[in-house]
Amino acid sequence: MKPMGGNGWAVGVDLGGTQVRAALVDASGQVLARAAARTDAVGGPGAVLQQIQQLVAETTQGIAPSVLGGVGVSAPGPLDGEAGVILGIPTLSGWVNVPIVAWLQEALALPVRLENDGVAAAIGEWRFGAGRGLSDFVYVTVSTGIGGGVIADGRVLRGRGRLAGHIGHMTIDPQAEVCSCGNPGCWEALASGTALGQYARQQAALAPTSHLAAFGAALDAKQVVASARAGDALALELLEREARLLGIGIVNLLHLYSPELVVVGGGVSQGFDLLHPGIAQHVARRALPPFRGTPVVAAQLGQNSGLVGAASLILLPG
Amino acid sequence: MKPMGGNGWAVGVDLGGTQVRAALVDASGQVLARAAARTDAVGGPGAVLQQIQQLVAETTQGIAPSVLGGVGVSAPGPLDGEAGVILGIPTLSGWVNVPIVAWLQEALALPVRLENDGVAAAIGEWRFGAGRGLSDFVYVTVSTGIGGGVIADGRVLRGRGRLAGHIGHMTIDPQAEVCSCGNPGCWEALASGTALGQYARQQAALAPTSHLAAFGAALDAKQVVASARAGDALALELLEREARLLGIGIVNLLHLYSPELVVVGGGVSQGFDLLHPGIAQHVARRALPPFRGTPVVAAQLGQNSGLVGAASLILLPG
Repeated sequence: MKPMGGNGWAVGVDLGGTQVRAALVDASGQVLARAAARTDAVGGPGAVLQQIQQLVAETTQGIAPSVLGGVGVSAPGPLDGEAGVILGIPTLSGWVNVPIVAWLQEALALPVRLENDGVAAAIGEWRFGAGRGLSDFVYVTVSTGIGGGVIADGRVLRGRGRLAGHIGHMTIDPQAEVCSCGNPGCWEALASGTALGQYARQQAALAPTSHLAAFGAALDAKQVVASARAGDALALELLEREARLLGIGIVNLLHLYSPELVVVGGGVSQGFDLLHPGIAQHVARRALPPFRGTPVVAAQLGQNSGLVGAASLILLPG
Repeated sequence: MKPMGGNGWAVGVDLGGTQVRAALVDASGQVLARAAARTDAVGGPGAVLQQIQQLVAETTQGIAPSVLGGVGVSAPGPLDGEAGVILGIPTLSGWVNVPIVAWLQEALALPVRLENDGVAAAIGEWRFGAGRGLSDFVYVTVSTGIGGGVIADGRVLRGRGRLAGHIGHMTIDPQAEVCSCGNPGCWEALASGTALGQYARQQAALAPTSHLAAFGAALDAKQVVASARAGDALALELLEREARLLGIGIVNLLHLYSPELVVVGGGVSQGFDLLHPGIAQHVARRALPPFRGTPVVAAQLGQNSGLVGAASLILLPG
């Protein structure tokens, strides 16, 4: 038996479409070392697996092998976490049926585990962040898309094929924009960072006096947040709309999963302080009475939720 | 230890706004006897508890007390199943903080358990109906409102305060009809039996040649189904719309809970054969690829899902 606190330290790897990141994480969830590289999209899985090996080596330099419990990998779906196989990564070519766990275990001579990125970040916040000690909470990441993970009754909610929690593809307005998935009105199509940027560009084109107009085609969600902080009226209006759209989806999540807390992460959460009043107002007004008081907070681990969550697969398995 | 199969027989009680029903159920889920009464809405909780006692006596006449494991009660929420207290029944006055389990245990000298009606029906279908043997399934009741219950990872999904699964109050169209809960565009406000009847009356008033126009203000969902069976064009159109609205919500449930199966019960399910092609088409077209094949079927226990589920609280507790 290992001492309380789990398997010593672990490396969390976050495999994304643009970046591969790794972090050495101790038993208390602290990040001790980090490294990152631009994902080798051209080289395919073989090249990326070498990048991961390299990042693991960088973050564990000088660490006694006996301290290291293993490597947890967070990756975009669809994947089979139990079999340790990535079934496909839409934004990276060649990633079809890649047995990443078996490959890395062989290359690293360490235990390796694999998890969906939204679920990994939820686990990070659950084990070491804003959801610590809770039995029921939902993590929402608002970024290029909308994803997340659900903790219910003290466990990760899995469902058939471990596919529960595809929260971004909940239809919230069937008359609205068509999503990348082909359906009109998915939450993701309306309220992701990408959607906010797109809507901002449309509106800025109609409002030449706004700061936002100056950005032209380069305008994105980040600049909307920055301009709102500087007091730009259109940017503030856009965030008010964003908060309302996030609120609609979050109220649905309250009714469907009954969490004690909703944690918002991802790029858009960098404007969370500006979005929070609108979201809270929506929850207070729109949720059924027993759900009205549910707090909605920003991810505590920030950009590390997924890395720490991936490491948690080793640190606190099960 | 009792033998495999549970606690002998049990009585399931379904406390509703218009009817109180009871059924004696054996260890295999078979209904052996049934009784019902019009809910005494004027007499308040005291009168209804006497009705329940009477119905339990009727259904267990001649049964050896040693065979009877107890009484399970299904009631509309909000309620506290663990404490055995009904917090309020919107359609019945005087039902505030009624400790129904303690009262009935004292009156009947039998173990009594309490469950939310949507969850009880889900448990009935899970233990003895269409969901038998599954780890992940969602039960949807489409009736006066829309309710249901969720089985996930082999257990009833509970959430904070056992309030998960308020599926009827998922916003699916924020521009649409305002729900009884005060919010626009809840699934229930658009696709319940009540909503179907209401929309049918509006459309029938504009279509004097339809069979439906003859019903006037008495037109409801039942008659829409009957007229569709008789080939009425407007009625068929209304059911096509209903199937589409049910489909939107069901696809959301697939993405959120990832069930192996969706089971539809409640009054509207009497027209399920007419609704099914439209629902299945919607699922095949709108669900994300890994969810597309999920079957949607009618409740196998029909009007008994809730009664059998309530009895299951005793027959197969936990």
